[in-house]
Amino acid sequence: MNNRKITKRTEDYSRWYLDLIEAAELADSSSVRGCMVFRPNGYALWENIQKVLGSAFKVLGIQNAYFPLFIPKNLIEKEAKHVEGFAKECAVVTHHRLEANEEGVLVPTGLLEEPLVVRPTSETIIYSSFQRWIHSYRDLPLLINQWANVVRWEMRPRPFLRTTEFLWQEGHTAHSTEEEAGEMTMRMIEVYRRFVEDHLAIPVVIGKKSEQEKFAGALYTTCLEALMQDGKALQAATSHMLGQNFAKAFDVKFSDQGGEEQFVWQTSWGLSTRIIGALIMVHGDDKGVIIPPKIAALHAVIIPVAVEVGGKEIVQRAYTVAAKLQEQLGITVKIDEGEGRVGAKFFEWEKKGVPIRIEIGPKELAANSLIVVRRDTGEKVLVDDVGVVAHVENTLAAIQKNLFEKALQRQNEHSKKVNSWDEFKEKAVGSGGFLYSHWCGDVACESQIKKETLATIRCIPLNSEDEQGKCVRCGGDSPRRVIFAKAY
Amino acid sequence: MNNRKITKRTEDYSRWYLDLIEAAELADSSSVRGCMVFRPNGYALWENIQKVLGSAFKVLGIQNAYFPLFIPKNLIEKEAKHVEGFAKECAVVTHHRLEANEEGVLVPTGLLEEPLVVRPTSETIIYSSFQRWIHSYRDLPLLINQWANVVRWEMRPRPFLRTTEFLWQEGHTAHSTEEEAGEMTMRMIEVYRRFVEDHLAIPVVIGKKSEQEKFAGALYTTCLEALMQDGKALQAATSHMLGQNFAKAFDVKFSDQGGEEQFVWQTSWGLSTRIIGALIMVHGDDKGVIIPPKIAALHAVIIPVAVEVGGKEIVQRAYTVAAKLQEQLGITVKIDEGEGRVGAKFFEWEKKGVPIRIEIGPKELAANSLIVVRRDTGEKVLVDDVGVVAHVENTLAAIQKNLFEKALQRQNEHSKKVNSWDEFKEKAVGSGGFLYSHWCGDVACESQIKKETLATIRCIPLNSEDEQGKCVRCGGDSPRRVIFAKAY
Repeated sequence: MNNRKITKRTEDYSRWYLDLIEAAELADSSSVRGCMVFRPNGYALWENIQKVLGSAFKVLGIQNAYFPLFIPKNLIEKEAKHVEGFAKECAVVTHHRLEANEEGVLVPTGLLEEPLVVRPTSETIIYSSFQRWIHSYRDLPLLINQWANVVRWEMRPRPFLRTTEFLWQEGHTAHSTEEEAGEMTMRMIEVYRRFVEDHLAIPVVIGKKSEQEKFAGALYTTCLEALMQDGKALQAATSHMLGQNFAKAFDVKFSDQGGEEQFVWQTSWGLSTRIIGALIMVHGDDKGVIIPPKIAALHAVIIPVAVEVGGKEIVQRAYTVAAKLQEQLGITVKIDEGEGRVGAKFFEWEKKGVPIRIEIGPKELAANSLIVVRRDTGEKVLVDDVGVVAHVENTLAAIQKNLFEKALQRQNEHSKKVNSWDEFKEKAVGSGGFLYSHWCGDVACESQIKKETLATIRCIPLNSEDEQGKCVRCGGDSPRRVIFAKAY
Repeated sequence: MNNRKITKRTEDYSRWYLDLIEAAELADSSSVRGCMVFRPNGYALWENIQKVLGSAFKVLGIQNAYFPLFIPKNLIEKEAKHVEGFAKECAVVTHHRLEANEEGVLVPTGLLEEPLVVRPTSETIIYSSFQRWIHSYRDLPLLINQWANVVRWEMRPRPFLRTTEFLWQEGHTAHSTEEEAGEMTMRMIEVYRRFVEDHLAIPVVIGKKSEQEKFAGALYTTCLEALMQDGKALQAATSHMLGQNFAKAFDVKFSDQGGEEQFVWQTSWGLSTRIIGALIMVHGDDKGVIIPPKIAALHAVIIPVAVEVGGKEIVQRAYTVAAKLQEQLGITVKIDEGEGRVGAKFFEWEKKGVPIRIEIGPKELAANSLIVVRRDTGEKVLVDDVGVVAHVENTLAAIQKNLFEKALQRQNEHSKKVNSWDEFKEKAVGSGGFLYSHWCGDVACESQIKKETLATIRCIPLNSEDEQGKCVRCGGDSPRRVIFAKAY
């Protein structure tokens, strides 16, 4: 337990974010620059994400597998744009031994003939397996997922959001037709959308990346974009249509029903631990994090109050209530019997974002009742003992709904059609948000906008209507609005 | 599906092992020397191991966390014996970028000030966190587990058994007293024993490692040793009492109830994907692998026979039976409706080791019955439709029991008290097995035995009786027998 005060969002948003992570014991810094430690509270969130997403994948017939951590340099070089996209941030293994030199200092020895890259993503190593596994149309579609750690060297690390090592899942599929691969790309971004909105209570916009922002080696990239409380965007997940680029680089062919050899069509898609950063930033308040019930590892905490006055019966009641909730709702409930003042306990569990707090004191014991407090609104309700299961069930659902709606309302408030360059600059530099503006489609113009405002094209929304207009920067023709924002 | 014949165990045991892995599609070689690919069938076994062991850990209050993949050189150097034990087989990251040189060849650039070691195990990086997390006796015991990939450079790789990268869990605990840490060490080796014997059906001997074979940096190491069909031993899991060695190296202290600063007492314990190698080698036969029902991802396969004669009703019956089995037993059942001859299908699922095969043909359809075939014994039973659920339930239990008993019988047959050096040499070089022999306790003598016979001390069995005797090699006094064997 640490008692440092949490900085207010309005005072210093970045500091607030770090304070929340520390207060809720989600992560910790480590002795390795750029790498963080996932503490049990933080890792439990990732395990729940794995559970829910994992079973969504299973329903679609996607199988888990595991591929090597290391990628030989020659393999990662095979797809030109891919290596260009990742070479600048690769951890490179060059030796396979440490040995004492003449001064007794351990130095790397056993130089490798070819350096190995620690995987920044696994397209290249996985597709060299696909090449061996796929022979005929009967082997397709091949639907593979991997849960793994990946490494992208990070100069300005921030816990969860940007770390040199992070955890993710990466899906990789191979199909016999372009159409089927295109459908898979869309199916997976929709799986992510449903998960992120329904379980994490984070509203998102689905869109396509611009050429400049798309995945290195993809035909096109679809993505989910979420909005943080400071008006900055965060990419929540991506799904890439790879076309035949990697198939050609790795010679992944199949013989079709007519016996003709063809290259497969591929997709890849991923969601990483950076989503936990989004979760913290979208729902947290000045008291701490708020964990949506559907992804929480701990749903309710029961705090016996004034046990020295009311006696052991209070604790016994707490255990009865906990057992009832766990059995009938299948949720996790903790009884905080620890030493320490009740007020400090309230504070502690608020920081950790447990959705519901239940208080039982002498008065409640006598009246066969208990007090239920919502973490999101702070609302306190006196509940009759017999009604506690139904009340908690409803309250958890209400919290889940409220968190999503609050975030959606904020997103709507910070989504604006911006038509003039002056307004664009002012908005982009100021309160931020999603700026729906026309853009000519030119990469140079996109770069110029980024240079002047730090705003990038987050996506071209899939549901955007055709609307002729003029590029907000250069005045060139534009067929539809795109979303600009500063981003994490 | 591949149709290469499986080499017989008696012909070439090593080739048999590799053939089984290929035939059951458990793993595949990769483009990275020493690293393998876990194919879906192999990874599903690891996921089931994670599920069962993970919940056993949870019952004991052990929490999952995740620590960095990289360990700075200075950290791994802190415990002298530890670095000595692992320095020779470390993958070392020295650069954080690939860049084209003048000839356009990508070369490592961005030299790190201090090299990073890819974790071979995580004591050092984890205990540098423990140092920050532990302040008072109230923070103890601290019980942490990590599921992770680790890397130990391997010159003679073999799938599952010895791979440069492998997957494992590593538990790390800190306690206030030596007694409690000692108890934890024993509790965890017992957790492993129960899991390995009850779920994997692999009988083991529990023992302590000799000084020479113990973990680098531990006070003592306990282990499970299993016996393979070729008479070689395989270490299935280890649990280490670390004493205060790492606590002193990493300054992990707590203030006790009297306010005195003390070093914590620590344990670490692990089980890795090499256990899947043991599973293959203990239960497999010349037809393929045999997966014990309790760890199987697929429990039964239903094969419709002669559908062209008996009609679609056969397939409908198969779906009815599958649904019944899945709902009532919670097992996974697959219906093989694929193209291809029935004989080839039998062969295919035998290779993959699915515990039960169910055949339904026109005769069975007409008689409201089906044929149930055990993978382990090949026994075929005609079962009445109404009795199928009970029969499959009993058969799965019988297979689980039979696999364990067969392996135990083999272990007993290959466990011998050996008193003379001539007999020792003959046995060690020949049929192998567990050789229970007296040993003087001298490291030089132990090394000499290894040099002459390749046999090492697998463990000093915990349940061995005191028995005065003479060292099998040098004739020196010995208080009890130890187990020698050649080992994987």
